[in-house]
Amino acid sequence: MSVLPIDSLETPRFCGVPTFMRLPQATTLEGLDAAVIGLPSDAGAPFRTGARFAPNAARAMSIMLRPINPYRGNINVFERMRIADVGDASVVPGYIEDSLARIEQSVSTLVEAGLTPFGIGGDHSVTLAELRAVSRKHGPLALIQFDSHTDTWDKYFAGRRYSAGTPFRRGTEEGIIDPAHSIQIGMRGSLFQPTDVSQSLDLGFDVVTTDQMFEMGFPALVERIAARVAGRPAFITFDLDFVDPAAAPGVQTPEAGGPDARQTLDLLRRLKGIDLVGCDVVELNPMYDPAQISALLAATVLAELMALKAETLS
Amino acid sequence: MSVLPIDSLETPRFCGVPTFMRLPQATTLEGLDAAVIGLPSDAGAPFRTGARFAPNAARAMSIMLRPINPYRGNINVFERMRIADVGDASVVPGYIEDSLARIEQSVSTLVEAGLTPFGIGGDHSVTLAELRAVSRKHGPLALIQFDSHTDTWDKYFAGRRYSAGTPFRRGTEEGIIDPAHSIQIGMRGSLFQPTDVSQSLDLGFDVVTTDQMFEMGFPALVERIAARVAGRPAFITFDLDFVDPAAAPGVQTPEAGGPDARQTLDLLRRLKGIDLVGCDVVELNPMYDPAQISALLAATVLAELMALKAETLS
Amino acid sequence: MSVLPIDSLETPRFCGVPTFMRLPQATTLEGLDAAVIGLPSDAGAPFRTGARFAPNAARAMSIMLRPINPYRGNINVFERMRIADVGDASVVPGYIEDSLARIEQSVSTLVEAGLTPFGIGGDHSVTLAELRAVSRKHGPLALIQFDSHTDTWDKYFAGRRYSAGTPFRRGTEEGIIDPAHSIQIGMRGSLFQPTDVSQSLDLGFDVVTTDQMFEMGFPALVERIAARVAGRPAFITFDLDFVDPAAAPGVQTPEAGGPDARQTLDLLRRLKGIDLVGCDVVELNPMYDPAQISALLAATVLAELMALKAETLS
Amino acid sequence: MSVLPIDSLETPRFCGVPTFMRLPQATTLEGLDAAVIGLPSDAGAPFRTGARFAPNAARAMSIMLRPINPYRGNINVFERMRIADVGDASVVPGYIEDSLARIEQSVSTLVEAGLTPFGIGGDHSVTLAELRAVSRKHGPLALIQFDSHTDTWDKYFAGRRYSAGTPFRRGTEEGIIDPAHSIQIGMRGSLFQPTDVSQSLDLGFDVVTTDQMFEMGFPALVERIAARVAGRPAFITFDLDFVDPAAAPGVQTPEAGGPDARQTLDLLRRLKGIDLVGCDVVELNPMYDPAQISALLAATVLAELMALKAETLS
Amino acid sequence: MSVLPIDSLETPRFCGVPTFMRLPQATTLEGLDAAVIGLPSDAGAPFRTGARFAPNAARAMSIMLRPINPYRGNINVFERMRIADVGDASVVPGYIEDSLARIEQSVSTLVEAGLTPFGIGGDHSVTLAELRAVSRKHGPLALIQFDSHTDTWDKYFAGRRYSAGTPFRRGTEEGIIDPAHSIQIGMRGSLFQPTDVSQSLDLGFDVVTTDQMFEMGFPALVERIAARVAGRPAFITFDLDFVDPAAAPGVQTPEAGGPDARQTLDLLRRLKGIDLVGCDVVELNPMYDPAQISALLAATVLAELMALKAETLS
Amino acid sequence: MSVLPIDSLETPRFCGVPTFMRLPQATTLEGLDAAVIGLPSDAGAPFRTGARFAPNAARAMSIMLRPINPYRGNINVFERMRIADVGDASVVPGYIEDSLARIEQSVSTLVEAGLTPFGIGGDHSVTLAELRAVSRKHGPLALIQFDSHTDTWDKYFAGRRYSAGTPFRRGTEEGIIDPAHSIQIGMRGSLFQPTDVSQSLDLGFDVVTTDQMFEMGFPALVERIAARVAGRPAFITFDLDFVDPAAAPGVQTPEAGGPDARQTLDLLRRLKGIDLVGCDVVELNPMYDPAQISALLAATVLAELMALKAETLS
Repeated sequence: MSVLPIDSLETPRFCGVPTFMRLPQATTLEGLDAAVIGLPSDAGAPFRTGARFAPNAARAMSIMLRPINPYRGNINVFERMRIADVGDASVVPGYIEDSLARIEQSVSTLVEAGLTPFGIGGDHSVTLAELRAVSRKHGPLALIQFDSHTDTWDKYFAGRRYSAGTPFRRGTEEGIIDPAHSIQIGMRGSLFQPTDVSQSLDLGFDVVTTDQMFEMGFPALVERIAARVAGRPAFITFDLDFVDPAAAPGVQTPEAGGPDARQTLDLLRRLKGIDLVGCDVVELNPMYDPAQISALLAATVLAELMALKAETLS
Repeated sequence: MSVLPIDSLETPRFCGVPTFMRLPQATTLEGLDAAVIGLPSDAGAPFRTGARFAPNAARAMSIMLRPINPYRGNINVFERMRIADVGDASVVPGYIEDSLARIEQSVSTLVEAGLTPFGIGGDHSVTLAELRAVSRKHGPLALIQFDSHTDTWDKYFAGRRYSAGTPFRRGTEEGIIDPAHSIQIGMRGSLFQPTDVSQSLDLGFDVVTTDQMFEMGFPALVERIAARVAGRPAFITFDLDFVDPAAAPGVQTPEAGGPDARQTLDLLRRLKGIDLVGCDVVELNPMYDPAQISALLAATVLAELMALKAETLS
Repeated sequence: MSVLPIDSLETPRFCGVPTFMRLPQATTLEGLDAAVIGLPSDAGAPFRTGARFAPNAARAMSIMLRPINPYRGNINVFERMRIADVGDASVVPGYIEDSLARIEQSVSTLVEAGLTPFGIGGDHSVTLAELRAVSRKHGPLALIQFDSHTDTWDKYFAGRRYSAGTPFRRGTEEGIIDPAHSIQIGMRGSLFQPTDVSQSLDLGFDVVTTDQMFEMGFPALVERIAARVAGRPAFITFDLDFVDPAAAPGVQTPEAGGPDARQTLDLLRRLKGIDLVGCDVVELNPMYDPAQISALLAATVLAELMALKAETLS
Repeated sequence: MSVLPIDSLETPRFCGVPTFMRLPQATTLEGLDAAVIGLPSDAGAPFRTGARFAPNAARAMSIMLRPINPYRGNINVFERMRIADVGDASVVPGYIEDSLARIEQSVSTLVEAGLTPFGIGGDHSVTLAELRAVSRKHGPLALIQFDSHTDTWDKYFAGRRYSAGTPFRRGTEEGIIDPAHSIQIGMRGSLFQPTDVSQSLDLGFDVVTTDQMFEMGFPALVERIAARVAGRPAFITFDLDFVDPAAAPGVQTPEAGGPDARQTLDLLRRLKGIDLVGCDVVELNPMYDPAQISALLAATVLAELMALKAETLS
Repeated sequence: MSVLPIDSLETPRFCGVPTFMRLPQATTLEGLDAAVIGLPSDAGAPFRTGARFAPNAARAMSIMLRPINPYRGNINVFERMRIADVGDASVVPGYIEDSLARIEQSVSTLVEAGLTPFGIGGDHSVTLAELRAVSRKHGPLALIQFDSHTDTWDKYFAGRRYSAGTPFRRGTEEGIIDPAHSIQIGMRGSLFQPTDVSQSLDLGFDVVTTDQMFEMGFPALVERIAARVAGRPAFITFDLDFVDPAAAPGVQTPEAGGPDARQTLDLLRRLKGIDLVGCDVVELNPMYDPAQISALLAATVLAELMALKAETLS
Repeated sequence: MSVLPIDSLETPRFCGVPTFMRLPQATTLEGLDAAVIGLPSDAGAPFRTGARFAPNAARAMSIMLRPINPYRGNINVFERMRIADVGDASVVPGYIEDSLARIEQSVSTLVEAGLTPFGIGGDHSVTLAELRAVSRKHGPLALIQFDSHTDTWDKYFAGRRYSAGTPFRRGTEEGIIDPAHSIQIGMRGSLFQPTDVSQSLDLGFDVVTTDQMFEMGFPALVERIAARVAGRPAFITFDLDFVDPAAAPGVQTPEAGGPDARQTLDLLRRLKGIDLVGCDVVELNPMYDPAQISALLAATVLAELMALKAETLS
């Protein structure tokens, strides 16, 4: 199996069943450093649904992306990091807890084989399953969360404990997130309760709102992230609604007033030296993405996270 | 509270928050014969999701419809049958069994107050909840099912028992459907197993495929339905994928090769003298209905079922 | 000015600003037998609006059509009938009566120059303006109306007399329609009042519902039309909602249960020997026509009416 | 009647017929401080039409919004200000002057009962009707207009005086706007005449173009607004085309080159101490809003105006 | 490599990168009877372009289809015929002749390995490349063409010989089609020249127009096809514009007035005993298929052709 | 022939077949200074296709634009520069080299008659044809290219030399571009090879990436452009993917992270004193532009280039 993607200067991008960035589809995990895995569950979506179609939507636009990253010294990401597309975890529509169990199992297989998982959600509940799998190997994780919502509510409809709004409270309770080394970035918009943001502080997270992010500037923010994480094994979760709906209309719960795509990518490209043991891009909803710009941005974000990881490999 | 809908010759249809056919929104159940109720659960959808938005999509196009039914002697449906829109049942995303329980409770409230429920799904799993509620009052029900699939499978993903593909096996097992007086109409398309259709026969249902339906003709089919039901309390469930995708693109699991809208309405308008104790239109998915023709057809079908019921009232 | 359209075997259809069927855009009326004219008013629309964009939407798809009509003896329509696209009448948004006056004036210019107008609406109110212009030359007209609604209501919102729902009552009152030689075909669906259909009979029209149309068959219907018109100067108005929404989703007031495109074109191709002094296709709404099939059908209907006319020219 | 909206942590947002922010639908005006009212007229639209569907489109996305406003001290807007959704004013399609009269009457009912109206247009002509109603109680109003166009032209097509392009000249002529205390913000783009902007200065308005707005910065702009209004009863009209088409594609007359959503909300959140006696968001056109981001932004803007008002109530 | 597709009762259809009907993606041709191959060239499109995205669009909806065909004795197609998805041929955008050469080479590889190719176009020019590849093994082929156009024109723009409008004249000239045993079915609509249909007769083809097809009825038509083919190695090419645009809006050159999906599938299911050595479905254009019904129909047609072939295998 | 566009205060914008900015459609080139010409070739598109429909899509939204440019001293562009819309060049689908030849010929006709061409692409390959035509009169041209990609690759699929990715290498080789006076602005995103950007430097171009553009600021950038061009005859080519996909979703190869519309227009409005001998806006793809904001921006950019030119005319 070749470890390099198909050359888009020879074979047009629209030819072939699209894997992420035209990477080989894995038939074995041997020899791999990392894997792209789709996590097509939208069972946790409190409003718009359809994120089950997100992994393939992201793949379809990821074929626009190329292997060399000029923002990190023109490294060829795929020469540094052997990575394949392993397809999707299976899920159980209508049964969120079963779905999380299936996802956890699929991601665990990757982690146990020594691979770094690059997940494509799915609604934000899938991150809990990933954290469970990754923390089993790496212990309580430093979480770096880009998101317009904290997702640290306690319960949703009928007192149920699992949804896209609760994963980071659950993860803290389960001891798989280390909130003292975790940070949430991008909160904004109206609130259910005055405590919507402070509840994360109460759990031990650091929180930077969208307004605070722009006030401090990206260099300061990047330093604050690095200080918070303090070199520990980190998981980056990128909820696409961190970005303004103009740049990412196709999300589950859009929130007006976020950064644009250029600002977002600039911020990610400034991150350095994170010990990235897993990451995901979640909440892409292709039902609301007629021009595929949200899918392209989601794929670009994941590719930037790959470069962040690849840079730390020799 | 007026029992008549808003007059669309005086106030344009686009004015106001749309209820079904611009009916009054119920503030009490007193004095009502029937109620329209939305059942916005898509937790059971094995493929496309989004039927949670169906009740409001059907309402939005139902405002095209008018109270007089020329196919049943120019009766004014709303003078015969006092009916209101009671809004939607609540559901629990990600927890199909909780969602069915909430739906059952909401429909039970209507049935206990003596109202005939006219449901707007939601995926086909919601019908199980309705049947539970209605049968509690009327006993095992004669089911008249228009559908391209039997929905009598036993289990789905991970061996789970509740989904859009299992309600009529569950209903038979629970004793709330009387299969000996029930009939499924419209099956077509490729099969998972050779038993996909015969499994319904094994459960005791009568089954008429799309091909058989056209071979026998509608007059014979209507007689067969009447003979099967034999005057018992009947529940009509209309899965919008009974119709060809050209006329109803906005469904969860489209199946090419069905009847068109004219044929469908002609068939429904020929039904007579059913003791209708409940009914629904399900599987509308507005995410795939850019011109709203599926929503219009779903609303028209429900309005024809109202006329069928109203005709039996004096 | 050439009287023949651009050759689509030489210059691809997508090249150039589209006129109807790539006809020359008129710079003079001299030497012309007929003209295509856009009537972009949607001031009369009681529900969906947007028909102001219909003339150009029909033009954009009309470029698919070719000059030879095999259903009328392979005649080359444009060799028989010299016709150009004269652009659009101007209108006054928000002022329906002004808009009708401007349309009447534009159509009158054509009629006075001896041209047969082929109009592209616009909502159905525009037909009243056309009838006023055409009848000034030809006297009270035999109207052949294909439509799912009678459009013979008296008044709409606030007692106003002009709308898409009233043109044929107004036309009868004004003496520009001769109802004794007119026929309305295709009525169906639910009614505001039991009199929605009979009001046309009371005005003197013949009425054939969709159900009656299929019961009698097209040969009998064509004879009934011919007998009714009795050789008098006739105006054909084709409301696109005559057709089922599956084939024409892009209309102002869709009505489920109509004929499909094949049946519709078959009916039109059977018409013979009408003394056609004007015609239109109305109620196309491109806002609800994502795949442009409604626009293509509207253009095809107009092209068939051109062939009907051309056949009578030597 | 409860004065608090439905709790979206208990009942999912997609359940129920959507009112603005899930507020109660008013059955009486008693006890209310304010009301949301839809103004679904697009009779004044000179180009794209469809704003008649805007009020319900804004309602459908407003259910994303929550009652606590963190930008104004975490106030619960609905505990401070008792507000309900009163549905829509009725209109008369095709008759803009009748439509304005109906809107004026509906808004007057609210104002006379002591309520502050929060309008959802409709094209910009509806603001004239609101200003007539509100000024009857409060006298000539200080107008704060966010818009990319001045809308102070004199006449449109056929010399007609009412359209989306003329309301603020009419309002000045009618003495219901006090231009000396009014300000127009956001003008940009190409012009019909060199006087398109200066005509507003000639009428007495202050005008700040988009370029000037960014040059002076928001703190200075907010001061300039406050100084201009000088504590008088003020009406804020927010034309959604103030925003760049990337953030608000669904408008009637888009103008490239405006502020993004974050900038727009930042500006509104800086406004303080306005004596707000009425306001609206207009020109939303859902026909061009496939991902509903324009509707979400329109709803968010209205919610921010509610918070601005609520902050001044004790 | 398993020869059976993924079980959609165990793993939801939306999980995984979609191959045709969830078949295994071939890593070798050994042991296979047939192959699905995408032919993503739209270089020959004279009007709408975008068929390059068709193979993946058909795959995405093909996952709705199941292995048992009840119209041919409940056979399990994939137990009878070992088939895999081999991905797409490569093409050269802007160079149609290079593209055809690449396609011919890819299909030849399949044919030489003894596989029956099931192609997914691409515009109709791709069929010429397939015919070249297949005829090299089987000699001049009996062509069964379902299409609304003959595609036997001689030259297009600038006198160029290759386009979607010329493949069957080229194929006849090249001796790879045996017109005396070939038949074209479904021609309709307006013509460029009176000879558009007769030119096929002149080349030696049998031609059945849409009107003639309905006049003779499907049993007679099926006999006529069988008699024409006379047991020779046959290639079926199915241009999706054979179907009415209501059922297949997403095509390159739609032609109003064709059969609906039920009629189309009924016709294909009646075909028996064809010695099928290759086939394709072409002209699907996903750019005009917002609800994916054209893609579903294209996939269903290809699945029916698989069943036709599988029935002849033991 | 009037040289002024239709007055949109008298005749609504939606009336009439749209030419660019409602300019007269040329029937002669005499007396003209410039011409708008559509270049509808997408034969060079390596990924998304559909730019063949771009010229008419840009025309349809250009009707929003008005003749007075307030950013250049309120000049009336059309009084300074007599300009007409000459329609589209013809092309040969599937034959990119023939298409370029036809385009070159059409543009040459304009240039030879002394007109400045304002082209609307089409994919970026069309610019090569324009440069050939313009340089024949003006010699090697100073190229000012706004683009997210350099388009200076050597070969694409099958070693072919013409595509949207190669025009500026070809133009340099052919001696029609003077790279020493040319500049490429806006490069960003991932790369095929580390040399993707440096290959332009190797050819002699100056290159400014998106990041560099924002670092230096627009005043410095404008000076750098002027210094580079040094007063020579210049051609501006504006690839719409220079802009962020949020503002221009409808392009062939979107690249996340570009400037927004306001920044883009601000930059263009700062350009002064260029000896503009030709220009174009390319890569607009209306298939991915549901709200027409990309088309509006493309039209606005072209209008700004007209103002830039008009300013230099007396």
